[in-house]
Parts: sequence; C-alpha cells; structure tokens
Amino acid sequence: MKLFRTFLLLTLMLAGWHSQAMLVSKQAFEIERFTTENGAVISPVKVGWEAYGKLNEDKSNVILITHFFSGSSHAAGKYQQSDAAPGYWDAIIGPGKAIDTNKYYVLSVDTLVNANVFDPNVITTGPATVNPATGKPYGLSFPVVTIGDFVEVQKALLDSLGINKLHAVIGGSMGSFQAIEWATRYPQRVERLIPVIGTAYIDAWAAVRLERWAYPIKQDPAWRGGDYYQHGQPEQGLTTALAYIIQDAVYPTGFNMRYPAPETDKAPHRDILASFSAWEQLMAHAKLRAKMQDANHILYLVRASQLYRAGMGDNWQQALSRVQAKTLFLPATGDQLLLPEMAQASVEAMRAAGKQVEYAEIPGIWGHLDGVVGITAVADHIQNFLDKE
Amino acid sequence: MKLFRTFLLLTLMLAGWHSQAMLVSKQAFEIERFTTENGAVISPVKVGWEAYGKLNEDKSNVILITHFFSGSSHAAGKYQQSDAAPGYWDAIIGPGKAIDTNKYYVLSVDTLVNANVFDPNVITTGPATVNPATGKPYGLSFPVVTIGDFVEVQKALLDSLGINKLHAVIGGSMGSFQAIEWATRYPQRVERLIPVIGTAYIDAWAAVRLERWAYPIKQDPAWRGGDYYQHGQPEQGLTTALAYIIQDAVYPTGFNMRYPAPETDKAPHRDILASFSAWEQLMAHAKLRAKMQDANHILYLVRASQLYRAGMGDNWQQALSRVQAKTLFLPATGDQLLLPEMAQASVEAMRAAGKQVEYAEIPGIWGHLDGVVGITAVADHIQNFLDKE
Repeated sequence: MKLFRTFLLLTLMLAGWHSQAMLVSKQAFEIERFTTENGAVISPVKVGWEAYGKLNEDKSNVILITHFFSGSSHAAGKYQQSDAAPGYWDAIIGPGKAIDTNKYYVLSVDTLVNANVFDPNVITTGPATVNPATGKPYGLSFPVVTIGDFVEVQKALLDSLGINKLHAVIGGSMGSFQAIEWATRYPQRVERLIPVIGTAYIDAWAAVRLERWAYPIKQDPAWRGGDYYQHGQPEQGLTTALAYIIQDAVYPTGFNMRYPAPETDKAPHRDILASFSAWEQLMAHAKLRAKMQDANHILYLVRASQLYRAGMGDNWQQALSRVQAKTLFLPATGDQLLLPEMAQASVEAMRAAGKQVEYAEIPGIWGHLDGVVGITAVADHIQNFLDKE
Repeated sequence: MKLFRTFLLLTLMLAGWHSQAMLVSKQAFEIERFTTENGAVISPVKVGWEAYGKLNEDKSNVILITHFFSGSSHAAGKYQQSDAAPGYWDAIIGPGKAIDTNKYYVLSVDTLVNANVFDPNVITTGPATVNPATGKPYGLSFPVVTIGDFVEVQKALLDSLGINKLHAVIGGSMGSFQAIEWATRYPQRVERLIPVIGTAYIDAWAAVRLERWAYPIKQDPAWRGGDYYQHGQPEQGLTTALAYIIQDAVYPTGFNMRYPAPETDKAPHRDILASFSAWEQLMAHAKLRAKMQDANHILYLVRASQLYRAGMGDNWQQALSRVQAKTLFLPATGDQLLLPEMAQASVEAMRAAGKQVEYAEIPGIWGHLDGVVGITAVADHIQNFLDKE
C-alpha cells in the first residue's frame, strides 16, 4: 500500500497535480439522424467532445484521440483547477508535452454507449438515453453499435469542423480499435496511426473474456432483461462487472500492491461465505465507479469490443492492407487482456502487406493499465513519431 | 480445430492410447473421526486412492502424486482397456516412464471436497456427502477445509500403510500446494519435492481470480444458499464456473485453436443478447464436466486454494525454511493463472533460506494446462531429478 501511494503521488506529480492545469471544456455535437453499420437509425445522436490547442489555418494539425472502454473524451487538462485529477493522458498531452498542444489541435470525442453516461462531463447516446419516439430509455431496443459506428460519429464531427486530414489518430485499448478503423476505413485522411495497448482483431479468447464482464450484469435479477430504468441499476451485477474490468486490466504485481494479501484475513478460514479483504476492497472500488455508469452501456461496449476486427469484415489482415498511415504499435509488456502477441500479429499482417510499422513495448507493473498510467515511458517515442515527416 | 484434433490425437498417442494401458483400480480409505485444522470434526472421512508399481520391502520407494483442482487420484493407467483416456499424467507415470513404476510405488489420493464427487471412480467427503448425524447432505454445514487438511488425510493413509518416508511428492497446480505443504509440515518424511505449475502462496490477485469461479455459483438462484440437494444442482452457475476454470487454465494461443474466432458469427452483430460460438462451445464443454461435479464442492476447493500458503500461517517464506527436500519447481511459461513469477518468488524464498532448489519452465501453447498436457516436455528433467541421490 505504501508503494502504491508513492506511485500514485508520483503519477499525480507527473500529471501536473502541483502545477496549473490546462483548463478545458466539454462541447456537444449532434447528428439528427444516424444510420448504424447495422442499418438501424438513431435519431438524434449526441456526443461530447473536447479539444486542446489551436486548429491552424489549413486545418492540417489535428490529432484525434480515441478513448478506451472505461474512458471518455476527457484526455487531458481539467475543467476546473480544483478537479481531483486531470484527463487520463494529461502526462503526454499539453503545451510542450509529447502531444504538444502548442503545435497540434488535439481532439477527443465521447463514444456512443459511453460507460460513464451519468458523469456530468460525458455526453453520449445509448440504451440509457431517452428515445424521443417513446419518451422512455431505449434499453435493449438500442441497436448493436460497432467500432465502425464510433468512427462514423467522429467523422461527422470532423466534417462539421471542416477537418478532412488527421496528422495522427491515437487511442488506447478500445481506442486503438477506433484508431485502426479510422486508418483502415479512411486511409487518405490518416497520416499517422498509434494503437496503444491495442490490436487489430479480437480473437475467441478475448471475446469470451469480455463476455465474462457482461455475465454478472445479465445474471443480476435487478437487470430485468435490460428494462430496469424505472427501478434503478442492477447495482450488484454492474459493480461485479466493473471489478472484473479493473482486475483484468491490471497485472498481478500492481494488483498485489493495491489489495491486501489473503493471509491478512482470518474469517475466510472459519466461514465458507466470508470474503477476503482484497475482494471487498476491489468491489468497493468498483462500486464508486458504478455510480457514473449504466449496466446496459457496459453490455453494448462489451459487444462493440467483441465484434472488432479491422475493416469489420471477414478478413482483418486484408483490411489492414488499405492503411496508408505510418504506424506505431505500443502494447504493454505485461498486458494480460490484449496481449502483446495480438499487437505483434497485427504488425506482422501490416508488414506482410508492405506497410511501414514501428513496434515498441510499454514496460511496467500495471499490465494493460500501463497504457494509461505508464504512458510517459513511451512519451519520447510518441513525440518523435508525431514530429517525423 | 484441425490443429487441435491433431494435437489431441498426438496426446492420446503419447499417452499410450494405441498400446495396452496399465490397469489400475480405486481403493477406499476411511478415517473414523477427522479433526480439521479449523477444529471441526468430520466423521467419517472417506477418500479414494490408487497406486501403481510395487511397494518395496523397506517401504522406501514411495512417490506421492497430489492432484489438481479439477482432478482426482486417477493419475495414470486405465480402469479398463476400453476407457476413453488414461489418468492425467499417464505420459510420465508407468513402467519405464519418467516416474517409473518398475522402480517406484506411486500413490495418489482423492482430496477432501473433490470436484468430481459424482464420478463413480472418485471417493471423497464434502458438502455433497450425507452427514450420518442428520441423514442429509452436509451442504454449507461442512467445515472449511484446507490444503493442510488434504495433507493430513494423505498422511493418515500412508501411516496406515506403514509408509513414513516419501522418495518424492509431486503435484500440479493445487497439487503443488499439497506437495509443498507436505515438505513444509513433515520435512523429515519428504526427500524430493516437485511443484508443477505451482506456488508456495496465493496472493491477492490469485485469490480474487479464484473468487470469480465461485461467483456464478453463488449468484445462481438454484444454488439456494448452498441448500439445493433436494432440488438439483445450480446447473447454470456450476457450468459457468467450470467454463471460467477452463479458460483461466488455457493460454490464448491454445484457446483460439480450440474455439472459433468471433468473425464466424453474424448474430451477435444483430442482437445484443446473441452469443458467440466460442462462448457457446466453451459452455457446452463445461456442461459435460458439470455432470460429474458438485457446485458446493467447487466453492470449498476455491476456498482451500485461496487460503493456501506454505505452513498455513502468517509467513510462508519462513515456513519454507523448514523444507529438507531437494526441490524442483516446474512452472509453465505461458501460465496466466499461477504465473511463473509465483514459482520464482517461491524459489527465491527457499534459496534465501539456504535450500537447494532447481527451476525449469514447461514450454507450450496451453499455459497452465501445459502442466498436464505438456508434461512430457520435462519428463527427462523429472526422471533425472528422481533418480539423483
């Protein structure tokens, strides 16, 4: 625990906790009628977005940041100086930082079905949204949406801003899927691609692992087949799902620094129903997160993630052959969720298609989470890659 | 799938599928009154055991095999030539094999609360056992039992046979806990110790991961707080738990050879409630296993595993300093359940206490499961280690 506090403090310091933060604000974007990849119509779609830095005259300095499963468009800065923490990649986004807002116009968009739908700083459309046609939340009548749909919403926003070229698109985890989909779908628009803790495909193993996040929600009687909005969240199921997400994103070394070892507990030896402190603390941690989140949104994010493969067709390797962007894959060495092997297979497929691809690993004890908390380890690499012609 | 079938065939061939199998039989052992580590009394305790080879005159050629979570004392041979498969380590146990039954008397015992309580070849005592005092299954009135208790039952059997020295104790996974506990608790009796895919302690991460196996059972309404014996198993919860156990024991490379990739499925893109074939096939596989198993037994095995640390006290490192056995740790390189780091930390603790410890990794694509299906890769190492004075 002591080590973890030191680590947290260091992170906060690196993140500019003691200095003045870059102040940012949330903006809203609306599409009156959005047709999903599936052919369904969502009317309207609203999403939030943030931008840091200044758009240059020829609109050629744009970097798009695509966010991870549990994240939002709040990638950097603070809304107010008093905020407890800045956006998740504040360590690398800002004036003079690796993604230099003195140079680049950095833009980030809340996804459809964003997990944090009850966070006042998140704007999203999903099953918890009231369907104007019925006056009630969509629930499971909301269509299955895909990473491709997330990209189309972002593209509509960029089109509305007159931006038709991206200096780079960078995203972590589920954000890497969006980044890769951008470069696959709109190769002429994307000059540089950086998938962080990412992969160009989800395999059977990862799809099943993701299904295990959905399972506790669907098993909670309070989920009521997805139609719980009059009764309140299936809190137990949602909390459990979030606990699993936390654990799956953290390598054991980091996890064991954060949660107490079993030998500190006596009750589990006496009582088969007693819990270990590690479990209880993890659940308490997850319960705090659950306050901002919606159970159905988690199901939809799980599904969007499970369905991902570059190009969204039957052959992700072939789809990658369309990419024109210079590419840098940055998996985390200890990642047990999206394994470095997945990034390696993605790189191999691109190289086999004659693409120029760099690969480097993020070291650390946090596993998948090193793509967020350990990102400074590859800050120079990112900076050099962005600045190269 | 093709590769997997080839692999299965190879395994079966290596396991002697095409040759005559060593015929073995199950024996029963009973303790009239067994007092657990916890101070509870179980009366009686019955367990099954098997032995291969011949006990020599001075009873000095005994090798004890301790089994893994989902396993039983059926470590080698077949009950009848027509059995579909031999015992799980048949590749290394038998006449002329690494654990040579021409030389050694190899003995294996069903644990308390064995998972496969409805397998006609398993004899165990646990929550599904009828409590003679009430005429009803124990259910959750069965006391929490520990790896130490498993060892005490085995010791009682060995005592009854007049065996007071083990040439070696060898076990995989949960069997490694028992093996280490033997060498820690009875250092004078154990000459060689081989923990396979093992560790001398369970940390917070592993305890939580194990808790996730218990969760679907406890969430199944058919579990009825553990008191389901009049109504039938909580089949959905039990099946899900077993599915998670299967996945957690298999490295993604192997898993993806066994189960179909998500892009083969169309329904999950159309319907948020549709499942992927990989999930359905895994659940079908688990459902077959569930027929032999009892949900409460899984909960008790989870707990016994969670509670394990060498010596069962507050300081497993110190407990290891009591070990006198020559020791060989054999983790699997791709193990994502009991990581090689755990074996390494166990080795370091023993070396720090001046112990002689060897370490080698089992290579393979199956991860934790390589401790079973990939064991031939370290057969020579085991054989040399056993034969060394």
